Amino acid sequence: MKVSVGAKTTLYPDPVIVVGTYDSHGRPNAMVAAWGGICCSAPPCIAVSLRPATFTYRNITEQNAFTVNIPSVKYLREVDFFGTTSGIDTDKFAVTRLTPVKSSLVNAPYVEEFPIVMECRLLQTVNIGMHTQFIGEILDTKVDEAVMGADRKPDVTKIQPFCYDAFRQEYYCTGTAIGKAFFEGKKIKTPPDHRRTPDHP
Amino acid sequence: MKVSVGAKTTLYPDPVIVVGTYDSHGRPNAMVAAWGGICCSAPPCIAVSLRPATFTYRNITEQNAFTVNIPSVKYLREVDFFGTTSGIDTDKFAVTRLTPVKSSLVNAPYVEEFPIVMECRLLQTVNIGMHTQFIGEILDTKVDEAVMGADRKPDVTKIQPFCYDAFRQEYYCTGTAIGKAFFEGKKIKTPPDHRRTPDHP
Repeated sequence: MKVSVGAKTTLYPDPVIVVGTYDSHGRPNAMVAAWGGICCSAPPCIAVSLRPATFTYRNITEQNAFTVNIPSVKYLREVDFFGTTSGIDTDKFAVTRLTPVKSSLVNAPYVEEFPIVMECRLLQTVNIGMHTQFIGEILDTKVDEAVMGADRKPDVTKIQPFCYDAFRQEYYCTGTAIGKAFFEGKKIKTPPDHRRTPDHP
Repeated sequence: MKVSVGAKTTLYPDPVIVVGTYDSHGRPNAMVAAWGGICCSAPPCIAVSLRPATFTYRNITEQNAFTVNIPSVKYLREVDFFGTTSGIDTDKFAVTRLTPVKSSLVNAPYVEEFPIVMECRLLQTVNIGMHTQFIGEILDTKVDEAVMGADRKPDVTKIQPFCYDAFRQEYYCTGTAIGKAFFEGKKIKTPPDHRRTPDHP
């Protein structure tokens, strides 16, 4: 039995991502976004939504570039700090003692201590309402050696990313592998009588 | 030390969401999307990206409506089936024995057995590349009583949503609460010498 809770942004899981930018003086900034997600495979793109009042909004529109960093649980405190202070009046990297590194492909900094970064050039800007969506083309992804598995693929149990619960304003962690995609569904067989008659022969 | 892995869509966590639609004959369909995310607070909006070849793409453009369902780990097999078959020739609800229920506010079905659904009307369509992004305004969110906490808020440990690892083509689970948002960061103090001189006085 379902009950209405109103028009709520209740996505589970909702990713916690850190957006890195430079301002017009080359000063690095990092902010937290929970409104974002991959939006295209080719070109590979990720979208982040920001309010126009943010420092990062101004920086992206000026530099046409940003990074999307995936933080580890280990840096929960720093990430929450990034999300609760403004780069307009605070040097967040100095306060948190985290390290900004200039991306090799775009004019934006990434957070050295975070395990994964996607370097993005601004591809499209979509005005929606309170938030504006920036679609970035991912030009390169860099992964910390420390979170690579023996098979040379990133290992989510080493990355230890986390999620945002918008309803409770809480963070929660991720866990372990539970199944192979494009495989689990094969355990379900389609009986012939559940075939549809195509309406476009 | 970071190493380049190429331009990859490596978002962690990446949500597994199920998109519900009707076709022009009123037949319900469900597909899986991993490219999606919340994109605006007001109006509350969620974006899902689809390839034009999909049945759901056609349905959304015809009905201007869709639902975004959050599945539980319990239905991993059914979800993967939704993602590996096409509604063009298969009645996925009949095969999986899951129940389509017509939304109260939009012309789209939701999956009765899944704990959360957001009912969406199509607000914007954004052509990006291989994928087209549909931005839906969330008109209502419905939550199963069974996943409500004692405080009448959804409890993620009862919802048991899961994530997609695009790099490994694997699913992984979510865990428990690890901290309060807008609180953890307060444990970090800003020394006066890390204040920035505003460049817009």
